[in-house]
Amino acid sequence: MKVRVTITLKPGLLDAQGKTIKQALESLGFKGVHDVRVGKYLELELNHGSAGATRKDVERMCKTLLANPVVETYRIELGS
Amino acid sequence: MKVRVTITLKPGLLDAQGKTIKQALESLGFKGVHDVRVGKYLELELNHGSAGATRKDVERMCKTLLANPVVETYRIELGS
Repeated sequence: MKVRVTITLKPGLLDAQGKTIKQALESLGFKGVHDVRVGKYLELELNHGSAGATRKDVERMCKTLLANPVVETYRIELGS
Repeated sequence: MKVRVTITLKPGLLDAQGKTIKQALESLGFKGVHDVRVGKYLELELNHGSAGATRKDVERMCKTLLANPVVETYRIELGS
């Protein structure tokens, strides 16, 4: 089972990397870029069965290793 | 308009960061993790109008700055 995890900084926290990318895009001539937020993306290939158990497992992975729950939020999408 | 960009290493290329995360998950007791691939995730807030023009713009951003087309692929999702 493929699971996609997207980890982003919580809203309101300063995203320095995003700000830098926004400035770089503007200096390259791209107009109308209001905001850029940067995050991490992970694709996990797991052999779990039920969707509920898999989601629970991946949530535990996020809390213990993949994300920093103090400053980051995560989104879990179960695939096929 | 919110645009989500996911940038991942091309399939077949060694993902050292993903391998390390896989090993860390296993050492934490998570079973059944077959593979982990790591990528970048970007949320762009743009003020463009048509979906076609926006996608074209973001593709140009990916090719010139956000991704390395030699080793990376990108996926663009237009939001609301």
